[in-house]
Amino acid sequence: MSSTAGQVIRCKAAVAWEAAKPLVIEEVEVAPPQAMEVRLKILFTSLCHTDVYFWEAKGQTPLFPRIFGHEAGGIVESVGEGVTDLKPGDHVLPVFTGECKECRHCKSEESNMCDLLRINTDRGVMLNDGKSRFSIKGQPIYHFVGTSTFSEYTVVHVGCVAKINPAAPLDKVCVLSCGISTGLGATLNVAKPKKGSSVAIFGLGAVGLAAAEGARIAGASRIIGVDLNPNRFNEAKRFGVTEFVNPKDCNKPVQEVIAEMTNGGVDRSVECTGSVNAMISAFECVHDGWGVAVLVGVPNKDDSFKTHPMNLLNERTLKGTFFGNYKPRSDLPSVVEKYMNKELELEKFITHEVPFSEINKAFEYMLSGAGLRCIIRMDA
Amino acid sequence: MSSTAGQVIRCKAAVAWEAAKPLVIEEVEVAPPQAMEVRLKILFTSLCHTDVYFWEAKGQTPLFPRIFGHEAGGIVESVGEGVTDLKPGDHVLPVFTGECKECRHCKSEESNMCDLLRINTDRGVMLNDGKSRFSIKGQPIYHFVGTSTFSEYTVVHVGCVAKINPAAPLDKVCVLSCGISTGLGATLNVAKPKKGSSVAIFGLGAVGLAAAEGARIAGASRIIGVDLNPNRFNEAKRFGVTEFVNPKDCNKPVQEVIAEMTNGGVDRSVECTGSVNAMISAFECVHDGWGVAVLVGVPNKDDSFKTHPMNLLNERTLKGTFFGNYKPRSDLPSVVEKYMNKELELEKFITHEVPFSEINKAFEYMLSGAGLRCIIRMDA
Ligand SMILES: NC(=O)c1ccc[n+]([C@@H]2O[C@H](COP(=O)([O-])OP(=O)(O)OC[C@H]3O[C@@H](n4cnc5c(N)ncnc54)[C@H](O)[C@@H]3O)[C@@H](O)[C@H]2O)c1
Ligand SMILES: NC(=O)c1ccc[n+]([C@@H]2O[C@H](COP(=O)([O-])OP(=O)(O)OC[C@H]3O[C@@H](n4cnc5c(N)ncnc54)[C@H](O)[C@@H]3O)[C@@H](O)[C@H]2O)c1
Ligand SMILES: [Zn+2]
Ligand SMILES: [Zn+2]
Ligand SMILES: [Zn+2]
Ligand SMILES: [Zn+2]
Repeated sequence: MSSTAGQVIRCKAAVAWEAAKPLVIEEVEVAPPQAMEVRLKILFTSLCHTDVYFWEAKGQTPLFPRIFGHEAGGIVESVGEGVTDLKPGDHVLPVFTGECKECRHCKSEESNMCDLLRINTDRGVMLNDGKSRFSIKGQPIYHFVGTSTFSEYTVVHVGCVAKINPAAPLDKVCVLSCGISTGLGATLNVAKPKKGSSVAIFGLGAVGLAAAEGARIAGASRIIGVDLNPNRFNEAKRFGVTEFVNPKDCNKPVQEVIAEMTNGGVDRSVECTGSVNAMISAFECVHDGWGVAVLVGVPNKDDSFKTHPMNLLNERTLKGTFFGNYKPRSDLPSVVEKYMNKELELEKFITHEVPFSEINKAFEYMLSGAGLRCIIRMDA
Repeated sequence: MSSTAGQVIRCKAAVAWEAAKPLVIEEVEVAPPQAMEVRLKILFTSLCHTDVYFWEAKGQTPLFPRIFGHEAGGIVESVGEGVTDLKPGDHVLPVFTGECKECRHCKSEESNMCDLLRINTDRGVMLNDGKSRFSIKGQPIYHFVGTSTFSEYTVVHVGCVAKINPAAPLDKVCVLSCGISTGLGATLNVAKPKKGSSVAIFGLGAVGLAAAEGARIAGASRIIGVDLNPNRFNEAKRFGVTEFVNPKDCNKPVQEVIAEMTNGGVDRSVECTGSVNAMISAFECVHDGWGVAVLVGVPNKDDSFKTHPMNLLNERTLKGTFFGNYKPRSDLPSVVEKYMNKELELEKFITHEVPFSEINKAFEYMLSGAGLRCIIRMDA
């Protein structure tokens, strides 16, 4: 039992007071975990587009002041009532989507969209009492997707915490909390390319490159990268991407170009852009008879996916995935093991590192499109 | 060796001289089979919508005179050069789509869309020499989808002939040549419902009822039939359909009605209508997390399948299938065995029977929507 258990902890957190304004490092109070909650000491966190998107709060009902952050690695400080799976000292990854292990989704082999703990970007409070565990001099500060990892301590529902191998370096495996697992799982769990097959990846951001890493691990012989931004192509080479297509350089639809390059289409495609045009191209570029296209990117509200039904009748498959179909508690520990046994490379995703006091630099890197992941060290 | 081998055979065939005009029983000459072809004595044939559709020839380049027919059972009379898999006397089902066993599709476990012998409704001649094997006093009569079973004898590519158990009654298993296998395979091979699951079937024609038969065989606990025609509901009860929805009776989209009936959506759906609206409803009525929708119906040229991409992201799967994903030569024999061991019921699909001389009655039954399948006895 740690000496802080059951007590309010005072610590540093990066608070977003207003949309799109730099975060401010503040001293916050973090209440003890309630029933089915755990309090974590965060050691490393990284920045993902989703943090930036909700921090910018364009076209959303803004929820401020708020503590962002959802990719992280940490250690359990104390646990609330009813928590039996975790104990102080456990090494963990908090995850923005949870696994209650009780609902129809958690009980289904196929789904990871837990009814209770599925991502909710509008909720800024904990489920147990509808209140926040963070405050500054009595003023509540809102949570973000149940994780709020831009804080030295945070409180998370036990269903959103994956217990991992304590030997795993948290400054590396913390990136498995979100984007990297999403892309990797989209390929390994959903597209499932066979050894020697061809795979097209649409969008070569961190998620797309993780999808490419999945294709490399699966033994794909051709990995075709598609991006509108030619700067992405150089970086992608380090991820096993063997060929490149920029739709802007094509004088016909990119799906036709890919079909010509591959004698009728690729065996698998994974879309990681969020653009509905890329989704349609990703679907129509797979081979008839056996092609599978997997959608990962988050579309706009009014988008419509359109295709001629014959493209489906000709035995193509279209699927979408959320968090790479990984169940966070059940499956993330084995993804960490893939890194530990050197099957999966994570270092190449980590292009920057800053101390917690300079967290706003991580936002600048992302906004300028520099690099893939910036690790934020909480102890520095 | 039969005494007719190598000779032209004179026999009766039902010739369509013009679009939408009654067929005329004529004496035709049937040439011997050439390389990789076999000549079959047809014993039983049945009528399918596709015959009627190309006989009506609306909005198509008409190809007449032509011998229609593609659901049938028969016996090999003689074989052409290079045919080693079949010999005179073998019991067979001719199929409108073939399996060359050599192309990428035939070698793929997943596809049955043979590059060489995939259905071709425009071609009225044999592949070997680009000519017809049928003639009347020297005038060639066109083939239909490589089968032309409305004739006492016909010539078919060996890749379009499934050799089956000689103990199987050809007057029953002949219906497995097309529509029944299509619906059955769509459920058993593609949708793959688990025991105890819920399945929605859109369209309760012969194909949809065969899909329902597949759901019954798979052990589905709820089979929800959807049709615009309320007359279909009575017949469907005999096929294990447990609940009915008529979209015309609903004051909201049928996918919403089904989602309410099933606490979020069915586990599987199979669309057997050809209507793009039904395709969209069939997709959107499956449960998030694990739902799979399978499209079977042949759409119109200008149809567009439209849905919001979030419906896919929420872990739904959309697939299409052709001939129920069965490879005709490799897989049909085992479907016949399912009938032989009483797993699959075929009798309930056969609602009428006529002698060959009255084949036009079969067209009348189909045009008036009476019954499901009409068996045409060639020897009568
Ligand atoms: N499904 C999930 O669980 C999940 C989880 C995390 C992220 N995401 C989504 O995945 C997507 C990718 O995330 P990221 O962090 O890698 O983003 P990113 O912005 O770093 O990368 C996206 C890339 O796509 C490219 N692109 C955009 N439109 C394109 C088009 N029409 N054709 C080709 N390339 C195009 C961009 O140039 C960019 O390089 C986003 O939509 C994100 O919201 C989904
Ligand atoms: N993919 C293949 O390999 C393959 C093979 C054979 C047939 N087919 C296709 O399968 C479909 C069904 O064939 P069938 O012979 O059973 O046809 P059918 O005409 O006997 O049955 C179709 C049924 O669908 C119903 N229907 C039409 N629109 C509907 C809607 N919007 N909602 C609900 N019900 C609707 C009709 O009332 C009818 O009962 C056809 O499109 C046919 O071309 C496909
Ligand atoms: Zn759950
Ligand atoms: Zn993220
Ligand atoms: Zn083939
Ligand atoms: Zn047919």
